[in-house]
Amino acid sequence: MATESDYSNKHVEFVAPEPTAEEQAELDTMYVEMDKLHMKPLWTQIGGLMPNSPEPRAVAHKWEWDRLIKLAQRAGDLVPVGRGGERRAIGLANPGLGGPTYIAPTLWAAIQYLGPGENAPEHRHSQNAFRFVIEGEGVWTVVNGDAVPMRRGDFLLTPGWNFHGHHNIATEPMTWLDGLDIPFAYQMDTGFFEYGSEKLTDESTPDHSRSERLWAHPGLRPVAFPGGTVSSPIGRYAWEHTDAALNDQLALEDAGYPGVVEPGHAAIRFSNPTTGGDVMQTIRAEFHRLRPNATTKPLQEVGNRVFQVFEGSATISVGEETFEVAHGDVVNIPSWKTWSIVAGGDGIDLFCFSDHPIFEKLALNRTLTHEGI
Amino acid sequence: MATESDYSNKHVEFVAPEPTAEEQAELDTMYVEMDKLHMKPLWTQIGGLMPNSPEPRAVAHKWEWDRLIKLAQRAGDLVPVGRGGERRAIGLANPGLGGPTYIAPTLWAAIQYLGPGENAPEHRHSQNAFRFVIEGEGVWTVVNGDAVPMRRGDFLLTPGWNFHGHHNIATEPMTWLDGLDIPFAYQMDTGFFEYGSEKLTDESTPDHSRSERLWAHPGLRPVAFPGGTVSSPIGRYAWEHTDAALNDQLALEDAGYPGVVEPGHAAIRFSNPTTGGDVMQTIRAEFHRLRPNATTKPLQEVGNRVFQVFEGSATISVGEETFEVAHGDVVNIPSWKTWSIVAGGDGIDLFCFSDHPIFEKLALNRTLTHEGI
Amino acid sequence: MATESDYSNKHVEFVAPEPTAEEQAELDTMYVEMDKLHMKPLWTQIGGLMPNSPEPRAVAHKWEWDRLIKLAQRAGDLVPVGRGGERRAIGLANPGLGGPTYIAPTLWAAIQYLGPGENAPEHRHSQNAFRFVIEGEGVWTVVNGDAVPMRRGDFLLTPGWNFHGHHNIATEPMTWLDGLDIPFAYQMDTGFFEYGSEKLTDESTPDHSRSERLWAHPGLRPVAFPGGTVSSPIGRYAWEHTDAALNDQLALEDAGYPGVVEPGHAAIRFSNPTTGGDVMQTIRAEFHRLRPNATTKPLQEVGNRVFQVFEGSATISVGEETFEVAHGDVVNIPSWKTWSIVAGGDGIDLFCFSDHPIFEKLALNRTLTHEGI
Amino acid sequence: MATESDYSNKHVEFVAPEPTAEEQAELDTMYVEMDKLHMKPLWTQIGGLMPNSPEPRAVAHKWEWDRLIKLAQRAGDLVPVGRGGERRAIGLANPGLGGPTYIAPTLWAAIQYLGPGENAPEHRHSQNAFRFVIEGEGVWTVVNGDAVPMRRGDFLLTPGWNFHGHHNIATEPMTWLDGLDIPFAYQMDTGFFEYGSEKLTDESTPDHSRSERLWAHPGLRPVAFPGGTVSSPIGRYAWEHTDAALNDQLALEDAGYPGVVEPGHAAIRFSNPTTGGDVMQTIRAEFHRLRPNATTKPLQEVGNRVFQVFEGSATISVGEETFEVAHGDVVNIPSWKTWSIVAGGDGIDLFCFSDHPIFEKLALNRTLTHEGI
Repeated sequence: MATESDYSNKHVEFVAPEPTAEEQAELDTMYVEMDKLHMKPLWTQIGGLMPNSPEPRAVAHKWEWDRLIKLAQRAGDLVPVGRGGERRAIGLANPGLGGPTYIAPTLWAAIQYLGPGENAPEHRHSQNAFRFVIEGEGVWTVVNGDAVPMRRGDFLLTPGWNFHGHHNIATEPMTWLDGLDIPFAYQMDTGFFEYGSEKLTDESTPDHSRSERLWAHPGLRPVAFPGGTVSSPIGRYAWEHTDAALNDQLALEDAGYPGVVEPGHAAIRFSNPTTGGDVMQTIRAEFHRLRPNATTKPLQEVGNRVFQVFEGSATISVGEETFEVAHGDVVNIPSWKTWSIVAGGDGIDLFCFSDHPIFEKLALNRTLTHEGI
Repeated sequence: MATESDYSNKHVEFVAPEPTAEEQAELDTMYVEMDKLHMKPLWTQIGGLMPNSPEPRAVAHKWEWDRLIKLAQRAGDLVPVGRGGERRAIGLANPGLGGPTYIAPTLWAAIQYLGPGENAPEHRHSQNAFRFVIEGEGVWTVVNGDAVPMRRGDFLLTPGWNFHGHHNIATEPMTWLDGLDIPFAYQMDTGFFEYGSEKLTDESTPDHSRSERLWAHPGLRPVAFPGGTVSSPIGRYAWEHTDAALNDQLALEDAGYPGVVEPGHAAIRFSNPTTGGDVMQTIRAEFHRLRPNATTKPLQEVGNRVFQVFEGSATISVGEETFEVAHGDVVNIPSWKTWSIVAGGDGIDLFCFSDHPIFEKLALNRTLTHEGI
Repeated sequence: MATESDYSNKHVEFVAPEPTAEEQAELDTMYVEMDKLHMKPLWTQIGGLMPNSPEPRAVAHKWEWDRLIKLAQRAGDLVPVGRGGERRAIGLANPGLGGPTYIAPTLWAAIQYLGPGENAPEHRHSQNAFRFVIEGEGVWTVVNGDAVPMRRGDFLLTPGWNFHGHHNIATEPMTWLDGLDIPFAYQMDTGFFEYGSEKLTDESTPDHSRSERLWAHPGLRPVAFPGGTVSSPIGRYAWEHTDAALNDQLALEDAGYPGVVEPGHAAIRFSNPTTGGDVMQTIRAEFHRLRPNATTKPLQEVGNRVFQVFEGSATISVGEETFEVAHGDVVNIPSWKTWSIVAGGDGIDLFCFSDHPIFEKLALNRTLTHEGI
Repeated sequence: MATESDYSNKHVEFVAPEPTAEEQAELDTMYVEMDKLHMKPLWTQIGGLMPNSPEPRAVAHKWEWDRLIKLAQRAGDLVPVGRGGERRAIGLANPGLGGPTYIAPTLWAAIQYLGPGENAPEHRHSQNAFRFVIEGEGVWTVVNGDAVPMRRGDFLLTPGWNFHGHHNIATEPMTWLDGLDIPFAYQMDTGFFEYGSEKLTDESTPDHSRSERLWAHPGLRPVAFPGGTVSSPIGRYAWEHTDAALNDQLALEDAGYPGVVEPGHAAIRFSNPTTGGDVMQTIRAEFHRLRPNATTKPLQEVGNRVFQVFEGSATISVGEETFEVAHGDVVNIPSWKTWSIVAGGDGIDLFCFSDHPIFEKLALNRTLTHEGI
């Protein structure tokens, strides 16, 4: 709706007040008094507080998988998992955001590592969480008593206030990406947390979770559960479906039919079958597949994205920076930074999550599409 | 929400006015004058117009498949299909509704027959339509240029204002159930109709329609098409998924988990993946599977249902009547008639469609559940 | 969205099958058999059932106030009001709809007459009802125990399943327009009815109903009742507000600002303050004011409108017909008939109600705007 | 929905890992490496990041009107208003939130002062803003070219991305409360800002804004503007309506009818007439009136409230603290702090705004009602 010119400011003459020394002294006295009373003038801070367009403190950054996985393994040797620390998860901390472990002002991303035979005890929290499995298998996540297998390429949900734990029945350790809205919950003071069973409430290892058996049939929903739910009832979006959907989009493109986002760029959004909307109220998740050397149109969006490379390679541009990425690498896109992707010679498969649902639900979303790099 | 006692009327003394002969003469004169001016008093008609609870003119009825199919075949021999008549469809006419071919005040149901090599030319109309394939294969329905295969157990959509035609490439004739909202459109004066290509616009015979390739992946939607649509973008709900979803519900019941509607009664609703709602704005479609001898809890609902038996046998009670049904038989349930089903010794598979979305969207729906027959 | 050309049909050659005498005999035999089995072929009826565009049986008609009021008065003399007949209401019967007293396939309109001191006992029904007061005062409608005054120009609601009765405390009889969705409820088998108190449950005669005191403050809602309701909680839309809103629109037009529908044509829609939507789920109500000699742009709409002249005069064109209307006259617009209004030399004030919400909620609405007559 | 016990944690044994000195050295080395790679372990920070229930850094605080107004006046003498600083607004800085001028993590509240004859130039920003006028008159706010009068008790909107400026035509200075979602926009990187006309685009001083003339008629909306809008089209909620609505609620309570929130506690919510929802997507605004000595039931809510006393006095309890408040005083309630109000001997009138719509739209809202203090 908004066009670029809507956002460009007119040139205006700033009529800066130039106080005399005496006036300045009075001003200083006033500012001291204000400070005592917990008051602050707008006129000394408006530029920073209300910029012409978003000037995020978060910066774009790449975390390399080789390094992430090595530290995760070392943590696996040194740090037990269990009650108290709860999870052996290592968060990716945006260099621009200073202290806290936030990959974006709203989002948390972490590498979680579970050794052979290890259990992560059950707990629940109002924060929404997902897992994306970049490699391996052998772990089941138990969500409210439903054992959900985790295998390469799978996308799993543990929406807010569902009890969940993990156990690794394999002889190999397993590592995956956790995504949560911890920073948003912390900043907004909405977080609730509760410990659950230390021992997992279901130790079975089925091929499909019960949630999939009820809900993951295309366009079919159980009559017993009508209506819409805040988050998706599907606990696991299995890789085989994601892969097939992307292949189908590219095959339709080959045949001259619509389906892809833009030439050479297939993408699916993980969705809530009871509403057609996003999987959780604060987090969007997608999977993108680019043909060899395909390019995405540069976008500027309010909100934050995080990409993790599943397979292949690409160059991701964010503002003035470019990142060469390959298997497992994580890159984030801060709000309103122009970004695009050029796939490498073998194409690229990318998992993506974002906080866009927050902005869409509040009608604060804005997107600019640029015609070229 | 409403309980039975809400609907029961108090006993009241009717203070019937008893006019004298002279008064009656004056009344008669007045009624004649009213009639001339196209006016009618409420007090002479309120009981019929505004009954204590719905008193549908439609009656429950069974159409036997053996007879339907024979007449459809005879029509195949005698009546060409083509421009003008458009379709070789034989409507099921509710005995209580007099003239028009309505199975219910809102719904049309018909048997359509297409001989080997025959084409039904393309047209479109604002009326919503579906097909349910009780047996056979070899026909493709072309919906806005997308060739959709029709096979046993499949449920197909041609929502309002989409061009569609059919062609039979097999050496056998094929027969299926058509469902539409023709009576509703006719009664409400909403019907638009337009001829399309006499020759089908796509004569290919793919295994899956393009609509399935874009939309029939569980919980995944193409990023290129965000937002909600009035009717489902899935052109074909393939039998393999319906069958699997029902089996999964029964397996979950065996394992002690929720999923079935009630003991021994699995059911899925065909849904719009962009909204989680019904497949079309006026028509709901479901598939029900009852274990051998299972019984459904008696229901009273505002709105009309139509069942067609896919496999197995059952006794369907509607008000005071009972119908023994087997493969292909069609039975309708008029508004507010108490109904239930007792499955036969082999259980039963039932396709079902209804006009319930109309009432839910208008907040006119009411359901009473009875605890036993 | 739809353009006119979308609805125009291409010229096609009708390939009418011309049976031989022998074939015709076989066909006749088949049709007889079909009839016995409650089956009917589509090909003999498609044109009537599925016209190219709506061909309503309802016709446009004018009911003259002078005649309506006289017959209402005569009924007041001859027919007692009370239990059984319930209301002294005289329905306006569309000449095209044959038997039943329907002004449109979905809508009922009636003149209700209540003599001095008379009571209409309480009842409730699922049918939605409103009153529009064309002249007079002195009656209170009691809705769920809330006494609502009725005065000239007021628009009153008694949404479905609310108990309501009327009593006239004045020394003059009073007459008003009743509008309901009785035909829709009858056709759709959704009607429920229940007798209530024979004596009114609140005989007070306040200046404002309690519903107005809670809900008729502009943009303000009681914190105690959050959320949306199916129908508006405002029992009475008082004339003073309607009149002021229309005057304000015309004053804004005079000052060069937006507000009116089109030049010289102010209009407000009565709305539900909890949703911003229509006052009831099946009925829309509006009030239109045209400046002297102003003209409305011709419209073609799916759905039915009914106008009643409040003050002034106009010519209303509907399809090929024109009606000269003045105070109290009622004219209906059938579905898809092109209509427009030319105000007389003193302008015109028009109350209007329609069934448009039904079509909008079901996404069956269509409107064509024509640029001139 | 949630009960208190849902949020209380079970007692669990914390199995704290107790590393040896050697292990600790290895851990320390690992933590240093992680830090270099912008990674942080969850297990060292989970308690602070994910508390059992919200532990806001914001504290409850009272700002006294006498002191606020004096500093505002002094600023009026010392600081010119104009391009650059844009507004002579003094923000209330929550003592718990450190540096920035936030009254809550999401909300900004400020005292704005405009001297006789002064103008605040036009600008627009995506941040939503309102004004509440605690005393005085003589200023008009110009919103997208519509001059809106500001008088005692009025509540005014300037929703995001509408140009707005102010001018004072009186001989007295005027002071009011500004509320915005600046902190939310800053934290979420959604802020856009643009300068507009330095000279006001409409210098007229009408009694009512055009927005009121179009939209502030109870339950009536202009037919020319159908559909819902993100924020309310009413620019000014005039005090006379607010006052009347509150009086009506108390009168209904006196007569034994529903309407008040709880005994002695009337409250209205300012609402968007096109949706029935909140006035802006991030901010809720209400006005509360308590009878003398009335008490509100203690509440615990996710989200932040700010109260400003309009008239009367009260004691506001927030957690362990109590604040005596009178005319003009401002008190904030941090997330999940139990709060209640006891009115003084003359009762109290309170303006209130909150960020609750953010949490409701994201389904993150929770409320606990306590039965007594």
